[in-house]
Amino acid sequence: MAEKRYCYEDFTVGRSFALGPRHVTAEEIIEFAREFDPQPMHLSEEDGRASILGGLSASGWHTSGMMMRMLTDSFLLDSSSQGSPGIDFLEWRNPVLAGDTLSGKTTVVEARPLKSRPGIGLVRFRHEIVNQKGEPVCTGENAIMMGMRTARENAA
Amino acid sequence: MAEKRYCYEDFTVGRSFALGPRHVTAEEIIEFAREFDPQPMHLSEEDGRASILGGLSASGWHTSGMMMRMLTDSFLLDSSSQGSPGIDFLEWRNPVLAGDTLSGKTTVVEARPLKSRPGIGLVRFRHEIVNQKGEPVCTGENAIMMGMRTARENAA
Repeated sequence: MAEKRYCYEDFTVGRSFALGPRHVTAEEIIEFAREFDPQPMHLSEEDGRASILGGLSASGWHTSGMMMRMLTDSFLLDSSSQGSPGIDFLEWRNPVLAGDTLSGKTTVVEARPLKSRPGIGLVRFRHEIVNQKGEPVCTGENAIMMGMRTARENAA
Repeated sequence: MAEKRYCYEDFTVGRSFALGPRHVTAEEIIEFAREFDPQPMHLSEEDGRASILGGLSASGWHTSGMMMRMLTDSFLLDSSSQGSPGIDFLEWRNPVLAGDTLSGKTTVVEARPLKSRPGIGLVRFRHEIVNQKGEPVCTGENAIMMGMRTARENAA
């Protein structure tokens, strides 16, 4: 396995990573919605305007996926990530509209060794994604399992 | 607006809806991962087997998206859904592997009118998705805003 830059030991509480920017197009909003969430406000500008969201808006699950991609591009692909046990919570606080640009940061809020899996620690992150006006669109926490550098050195 | 079958009043606590089945292919696991979560265990069988997930496995965000699609196909597209404020929690409890078939149910656990939005109520669901062996793969709760039938009749 190629050496990764970020292992469990590097995720100290309070450390943060910049996310994005990512521009959101009408085409990708509609493409995701057709596949996973074909509700009218995610499929056309007209139905979006008629909804309480105020315009063609991304499914919250799409926004979450875009956040995940920002995480992988920021640091996860260069980490010892072993996947995630789930989502602690996630708030879709404002609509993500076609033409928006998302960015934000994630911050380590907890890091502890996993008793059940030697050599792996659980790192909990707080994600905060905003639009180009600085309005929050996706805020939440989820944990990622990270391999320890020491464990890898022992195995080498 | 066309008449919808399910409005806020229909989501009584304890009512449940069947979800799926949905077959999961290697191709769609890889396609989603390329777009939203390009970690190695979501991109190839070989890297999946080398990971703690044990095989080519869907991103948890992909599993969540597939769950959302099962919800829309089951009842949401025929409901007065106005979107969701987020996810209360979600547990990815076992890997979703290429070739798996997912199914499950969702159950109303809370329903209350929204003070901030007259005519709309918040319905909280507990989602439980299992694979073909009955093993849980995605369990969690999220709330959806539902228009009230009475509100619509008043507006007509």
